[in-house]
Amino acid sequence: MDVYKTLREESFEANLEIKRQNLAIYTWGNASAFDPAKGIFAIKPSGVAYDALKPELMVLVDLDGAIVEGGLKPSSDTKTHQVLYREFTGILGITHTHSSYAVAWAQAQKPVPVFGTTHADFCAAEIPCTPLMSREAVKNNYELETGKLIAETFRKGAIDPADINMILVAGHGPFTWGTSAAQSVCHSVILEEICKIALFTVTIDPLAQALPEHIIRKHWERKHGPDAYYGQR
Amino acid sequence: MDVYKTLREESFEANLEIKRQNLAIYTWGNASAFDPAKGIFAIKPSGVAYDALKPELMVLVDLDGAIVEGGLKPSSDTKTHQVLYREFTGILGITHTHSSYAVAWAQAQKPVPVFGTTHADFCAAEIPCTPLMSREAVKNNYELETGKLIAETFRKGAIDPADINMILVAGHGPFTWGTSAAQSVCHSVILEEICKIALFTVTIDPLAQALPEHIIRKHWERKHGPDAYYGQR
Amino acid sequence: MDVYKTLREESFEANLEIKRQNLAIYTWGNASAFDPAKGIFAIKPSGVAYDALKPELMVLVDLDGAIVEGGLKPSSDTKTHQVLYREFTGILGITHTHSSYAVAWAQAQKPVPVFGTTHADFCAAEIPCTPLMSREAVKNNYELETGKLIAETFRKGAIDPADINMILVAGHGPFTWGTSAAQSVCHSVILEEICKIALFTVTIDPLAQALPEHIIRKHWERKHGPDAYYGQR
Amino acid sequence: MDVYKTLREESFEANLEIKRQNLAIYTWGNASAFDPAKGIFAIKPSGVAYDALKPELMVLVDLDGAIVEGGLKPSSDTKTHQVLYREFTGILGITHTHSSYAVAWAQAQKPVPVFGTTHADFCAAEIPCTPLMSREAVKNNYELETGKLIAETFRKGAIDPADINMILVAGHGPFTWGTSAAQSVCHSVILEEICKIALFTVTIDPLAQALPEHIIRKHWERKHGPDAYYGQR
Repeated sequence: MDVYKTLREESFEANLEIKRQNLAIYTWGNASAFDPAKGIFAIKPSGVAYDALKPELMVLVDLDGAIVEGGLKPSSDTKTHQVLYREFTGILGITHTHSSYAVAWAQAQKPVPVFGTTHADFCAAEIPCTPLMSREAVKNNYELETGKLIAETFRKGAIDPADINMILVAGHGPFTWGTSAAQSVCHSVILEEICKIALFTVTIDPLAQALPEHIIRKHWERKHGPDAYYGQR
Repeated sequence: MDVYKTLREESFEANLEIKRQNLAIYTWGNASAFDPAKGIFAIKPSGVAYDALKPELMVLVDLDGAIVEGGLKPSSDTKTHQVLYREFTGILGITHTHSSYAVAWAQAQKPVPVFGTTHADFCAAEIPCTPLMSREAVKNNYELETGKLIAETFRKGAIDPADINMILVAGHGPFTWGTSAAQSVCHSVILEEICKIALFTVTIDPLAQALPEHIIRKHWERKHGPDAYYGQR
Repeated sequence: MDVYKTLREESFEANLEIKRQNLAIYTWGNASAFDPAKGIFAIKPSGVAYDALKPELMVLVDLDGAIVEGGLKPSSDTKTHQVLYREFTGILGITHTHSSYAVAWAQAQKPVPVFGTTHADFCAAEIPCTPLMSREAVKNNYELETGKLIAETFRKGAIDPADINMILVAGHGPFTWGTSAAQSVCHSVILEEICKIALFTVTIDPLAQALPEHIIRKHWERKHGPDAYYGQR
Repeated sequence: MDVYKTLREESFEANLEIKRQNLAIYTWGNASAFDPAKGIFAIKPSGVAYDALKPELMVLVDLDGAIVEGGLKPSSDTKTHQVLYREFTGILGITHTHSSYAVAWAQAQKPVPVFGTTHADFCAAEIPCTPLMSREAVKNNYELETGKLIAETFRKGAIDPADINMILVAGHGPFTWGTSAAQSVCHSVILEEICKIALFTVTIDPLAQALPEHIIRKHWERKHGPDAYYGQR
């Protein structure tokens, strides 16, 4: 019996969704699913085309980065996932893509302002953008340091990763997370849409202003607050 | 016998069309169909995926916002629909989406100038954009106040909602209406196209000028005036 | 026996191609096919959806604008086609669309500079843009005057419609023509692509310069000059 | 027995991929496959639609530009391919397209800065852009001179075509190459994506800065350096 069957399948499905949602061309993206009880996550093998993926090809990795099961090398971004699962308690899935609009904001090294309620429905503050990684950090352990840089950006900004489940790594691209691998990809789709609309907004008006706080809070609260009334809950 | 069968089906079809026309991802949009004789409208249930919709899941609501029939909660934007059906006599369908270009203009908080005949064919004036909602209105009853803000914008601008059947809610997005639910979605498609072309226009020339009034009137009249000669009427 | 069978079918096919190539939504475009021997052209009926078109629905019109055959009203732009067939000897097909990028340049009221060889391969000069139509011309006979405005723009610019088979009508959109209805739609596709790339070019560099004349001529000549060597001729 | 069977098929497949990846409309692109042992390459016939292509229609050409086999004229860009196979030892496939974003940068006559890791993963320096071709070169032998211009741009910039396998020809468009025809098309897809994201980046911030060298090197090295660890090698 395969004790990692569910984990593999969740990770597999999330990776396929990256492709279906056009968040990456070729092999430019990866998703993982985490089981906190086992301390293990399943992640895409490095450089394998989405069409060639199968649940049994997913690689099982523990939080020290050791491969628990799997004949292939895990994604080159594995250590970033590992750090985030350690740092951001409660998240059960992570997605990294090179979706065009999110990468553009990352390359412009700018956080995405809350220009509208489409953004506020999911995120009551700007989408954070890390600083560029230092020469020393790059030399040390690039992918591990990427995770640390993300965690540090949240710590310094006093941001709760349960509230803001997405970030832009400066000069690189987006990472998103959630309470499942499936939800983490869904957040990548939403981030891409937010980034696209934000780019259109500054095209129309380079000096466009963020929404006032009272509208941001309202939209966030109606979906995520204690008295949320969106959906069928 | 289901006395609301037609209403449910019209609303159901209009909601599916939102998806087919790529006006929203996930559940980001809703359409309703109104029966003025009954004083009742059918609207999408909140947060339900378009793929999971069925005519029998549509929620029947009266103009006081009371649920007449339906096991699910109606769209969180239901009160906005309710106010518009009250205020804009004669409209029989309403659509709200988060289509990218229309949302961008709403986020830039700018009305869309009549840059060309594509716009004038449907709307002989700029697409209006509401002001941002005040802190008090948001606190009071957000979705109801959204409807009031739209109605007030039309009243203040002396705009006839039979002529201009679309608006941008500042920082939020588009609402469109028509003489049927189907027509209201059609207006959302047209609004998105107008907003896309307008964005391209200001990209080419940030100082682009609106059409002169004599060309605007001509295009409007040939489709909508007393001597209209477009189409097979 | 239907003596207009070929003409109907050519026009029908060209109109379907408008849809297939995404040059128009709903009914926003029309194509016609001309038989100079008969002095008659077949054109799309006004306001009929592309999906509902059939060859037998095409309307046959002579160069005075009289309907020769057809139970439906012809396209509201029929008189523009009529003038162009009169003025531009040798053209056998005309297409009018509301394709997004071409309309944006028309709305910006700017000719499209020859930014590159993609443009020069088809057109050795900028894509002309008419001036805005005067109040008097609009009052007189709008669609007829649109044709005259196009012809006048070519006359004033000493442009040969056999060389430059496309124009932007200011504030309105593109008209293209060719030696068949099929070729005229093809030119609409090419014009849209040229306008898209030109918009991207000015986005990268608002001061982008046109190609030098010696490269423009070379690309034009290799496809259209007396010693053309592109293709299998 | 057809000694060129493999070469024809590789070239055929690469040309079809141009179409599948939406890198060209109509016949606006061509790919070739080279066999260095025979000194022969297979290339698309000029002006033939992708849908009408068959392996047996590919034209076999030697490095002097002589047609070795094939009943059709080869691509009008054949001499450019010929020069590149001569000048850039080791490349086995070349692709030329008119993909929209790459052409836009070529038309803006600007190299594409390394704005992010998406770029650095494939190319550790800016994508070079040739100067405009001189009047004399155009008169002499346009397509041959295009190849020379590319080679000269690499020589002057001391760029190794094994490292940077793509270039923008000013005012024209992209050429890419690789260790197979298939890889050369793949590089055209990647170049288009890099150019798209770069355009979005300068839209957000016209003064966007290139990545610091230490991040560029890291991303390049992890995919292409002696200690590369991306993928399953």
